[in-house]
Amino acid sequence: MSEQTRTNPSQPRHRRDIEQWDMETDVAVIGFGGAGGCAAIAAADAGAQVTIFELASASGGSTAMSSAEIYMGGNGGTRVQRACGFEDSTEDMFTYMMMCAGPQADEAKIRNYCENSRAHFDWLVDLGVPFKDSFHQERAIMCLTDDGLLYTGSEKAYPFAQQAKPSPRGHNLYIEGDNGGPLFMKIVTENVEQRDTITVQYESRALTLIIDDKDEVVGIVIRKDQQELNVRARQGVILCAGGFVMNEEMLQKYAPMLSKGTEPIGNPGDTGSGIQMGMAVGGAAINMHEGFISIPYYPPASMTYGIAINDKAQRFINEDVYHARLGHAALQQQGDRLYFIVTIDDYGSYEQLNFLFAPIAGTGETVAELEEELQLRQGSLQQTITLYNEDCRAGEDTLYHKASQWLKPLEPPLVALDITPGRGCFVPFFTLGGLDTLPTGEVVNPQRQVIPGLYAAGRTACGVVRRAEGYSSGMSVGDATFSGRLAGRQAASAPRR
Amino acid sequence: MSEQTRTNPSQPRHRRDIEQWDMETDVAVIGFGGAGGCAAIAAADAGAQVTIFELASASGGSTAMSSAEIYMGGNGGTRVQRACGFEDSTEDMFTYMMMCAGPQADEAKIRNYCENSRAHFDWLVDLGVPFKDSFHQERAIMCLTDDGLLYTGSEKAYPFAQQAKPSPRGHNLYIEGDNGGPLFMKIVTENVEQRDTITVQYESRALTLIIDDKDEVVGIVIRKDQQELNVRARQGVILCAGGFVMNEEMLQKYAPMLSKGTEPIGNPGDTGSGIQMGMAVGGAAINMHEGFISIPYYPPASMTYGIAINDKAQRFINEDVYHARLGHAALQQQGDRLYFIVTIDDYGSYEQLNFLFAPIAGTGETVAELEEELQLRQGSLQQTITLYNEDCRAGEDTLYHKASQWLKPLEPPLVALDITPGRGCFVPFFTLGGLDTLPTGEVVNPQRQVIPGLYAAGRTACGVVRRAEGYSSGMSVGDATFSGRLAGRQAASAPRR
Repeated sequence: MSEQTRTNPSQPRHRRDIEQWDMETDVAVIGFGGAGGCAAIAAADAGAQVTIFELASASGGSTAMSSAEIYMGGNGGTRVQRACGFEDSTEDMFTYMMMCAGPQADEAKIRNYCENSRAHFDWLVDLGVPFKDSFHQERAIMCLTDDGLLYTGSEKAYPFAQQAKPSPRGHNLYIEGDNGGPLFMKIVTENVEQRDTITVQYESRALTLIIDDKDEVVGIVIRKDQQELNVRARQGVILCAGGFVMNEEMLQKYAPMLSKGTEPIGNPGDTGSGIQMGMAVGGAAINMHEGFISIPYYPPASMTYGIAINDKAQRFINEDVYHARLGHAALQQQGDRLYFIVTIDDYGSYEQLNFLFAPIAGTGETVAELEEELQLRQGSLQQTITLYNEDCRAGEDTLYHKASQWLKPLEPPLVALDITPGRGCFVPFFTLGGLDTLPTGEVVNPQRQVIPGLYAAGRTACGVVRRAEGYSSGMSVGDATFSGRLAGRQAASAPRR
Repeated sequence: MSEQTRTNPSQPRHRRDIEQWDMETDVAVIGFGGAGGCAAIAAADAGAQVTIFELASASGGSTAMSSAEIYMGGNGGTRVQRACGFEDSTEDMFTYMMMCAGPQADEAKIRNYCENSRAHFDWLVDLGVPFKDSFHQERAIMCLTDDGLLYTGSEKAYPFAQQAKPSPRGHNLYIEGDNGGPLFMKIVTENVEQRDTITVQYESRALTLIIDDKDEVVGIVIRKDQQELNVRARQGVILCAGGFVMNEEMLQKYAPMLSKGTEPIGNPGDTGSGIQMGMAVGGAAINMHEGFISIPYYPPASMTYGIAINDKAQRFINEDVYHARLGHAALQQQGDRLYFIVTIDDYGSYEQLNFLFAPIAGTGETVAELEEELQLRQGSLQQTITLYNEDCRAGEDTLYHKASQWLKPLEPPLVALDITPGRGCFVPFFTLGGLDTLPTGEVVNPQRQVIPGLYAAGRTACGVVRRAEGYSSGMSVGDATFSGRLAGRQAASAPRR
């Protein structure tokens, strides 16, 4: 097949059309973020000669841009969990994560993740990743102290807490502020550099996979220094090239509902190239419509005493859930305005400490005044707050089951923030769809048959996290590092071809 | 490539591995439902020699199982619309259909559909499809009289009516009852049989596409009488093999959220085989998570005077919308019960004339009594109905904008139906995802480049209908026949290879 007649740039190249290999390796890893770094380390430690190809001129990926909490637990608890007094069970973690993924759950993958999560913690610690044995009590989106452990999801909220005993599973690196990501990637990069059997090629763009006559993946075409290199991968290619949040065409095709009023979060390499290369050799891309969408209405934690309403003045969720679960529910509402209502006292430090940048939509010395200012139907907000305040006094949120610790009557004066996406507040999103893989990282086709020689991990694969409704901070870096490590190990166990 | 090493049953076969063609045709059409029949007729009328391969022993597909309303209009109105006094404009139809499809809209496809819809009506009439020039006034899911025209969507409901002048566009065949589908396929089948240049092969299963060295589709492998036949298609293959609602594995992979408490609607051939064959040669499958999901709470039309509530006793939509738009909104609600509340009078003929089979969840001589019987939070339903009744008396639904003609205070005694999917009521669903195509029917890859020789139509393609929220009866058969016809014409214009 000549270059001229190829209709699809991701279309695989055939080995028979390759005159010579320009480079050879056992395992080719595409992308040097958290997933790629862990894949390379695991493959090298299992005896493979590894080459990482990274588009940018340095390692990092989206992991380095994140705060790098890592979602881990189970098996009686990680060292940090146990030190902080949490005996986390594998079953509770499994139940929670299955509820998070809902109908989209990949049970085998979640099972494997939970059963091996504590071992994953130990593996990371062995790499040198530091976690302090201390618990961060405050409800937060990310930990700005150096504490090692915090609640980062909806574990303590309805309906999760009723079915799985809550434990905090967000592991935060031992460093102040939100600098976990850079530190994590520094440690991973040092580990890569210490291993003689890993080579890193920066400024190297993966173009397309190379398949043989049996449709097995045997290499990859790399563009570097304006040249195309045919790279033979004797044991396999691991795609760790991120998601597709930076590819407007793919967003429009697969997830157009995610981008209205929202801000894409990711690194510039999140163009979906890994997913496309995998699809071009028959890999199934699944869950492509789903994304993380959040309305980060806390911190401060005191915002949790407030209520979220739609433009009918109806509440729509228990406000003690994770911010992406509230964000998802918010986007399902009919109407064109969404508000978050708190007392003037609980609004408190919001102006200093907020990720949302939501403008004030109205204030009221009485509920009726606020209702009028927000142009809500007369009586509607008064009804909602009357019921809610009754529930607060009785200590039970009869409608949405917000935990009693967050129930406190909304006594005026009240403040309403406009949390409508696209109206001044910050609504981040990224994609959650990708290549379907087995727990081993092997990419499968729509019939769930393995495509020999091809692996995917991190956001290029569709991992354990499937929906905004069930996201918890730390699940992305948790899944990226875990799935990368497993894919590396699996590839290194393949026979050399 | 030998049979033994092929990992994917849909994996295309290569022409170089085909020793001889067992059969030759210009255009191969896969599937003989509404899309396939119209594709074959159009291709033949454009000069091609056509062969239809149908899995079953007779024509029909899902079209024959439907009532076969056809959604058409624009350009000043079809003959029937004009006779009934509706001067439908293309722009109003376009605006409505764009709103229906929402962010997932394929603007070019919808534009083309609307601009050529009146001509499509004429084409169908030329085939012999009969429509009576009469308007069915009553709000209905399908027309059980022989009237030719009725409202079949949310055209007169908020927010559609505010942005596009409503016209009825559901065209119903001139036959009593819901027998439009069988009559339609009878007429299409007769048209096929009348054309010497069309051959039909029944009991013929399409297995996989055949591609040449340039990745062009040049044929298809058919299994018939326990033999595999390599069929050469000189001008192209048109996949009209239905959707994937009968393929549990694909549903689990792509649309697991659709099947909870719902009933798949389709024909046994809706196994997604056409979509899979297209994907295997690089075709993009899009919108795969979306489906039609309906809670058919009317007829009788008098049900529209009622309100739908979630288990917080909150309304969540204007109840004069199309039943699938209400169904979609219902499934977005938190909580585990959904009710439809009407007065005992409006409940009226529901027991005789209903498609929903929803059990009665409660009755009340007062609202408080019903509230208690439904175990709703004390005061919650009373609040909702107080506001709603005030709005009814004022003639404006301030919350959800149900049209004033449907506003009438809910005066006890009241009846509540349990419309929770999976609890006795009937919630049909089918898939809306499929191969991405150009308006011509040409299948495209993820980069939207045409895959030469491959076409798709009907439910195998992702057509103009993209969401339950924006479905209107008649859009499926409208799209199937329209897209089939265009694909047939386009294939017949390709050079013979």
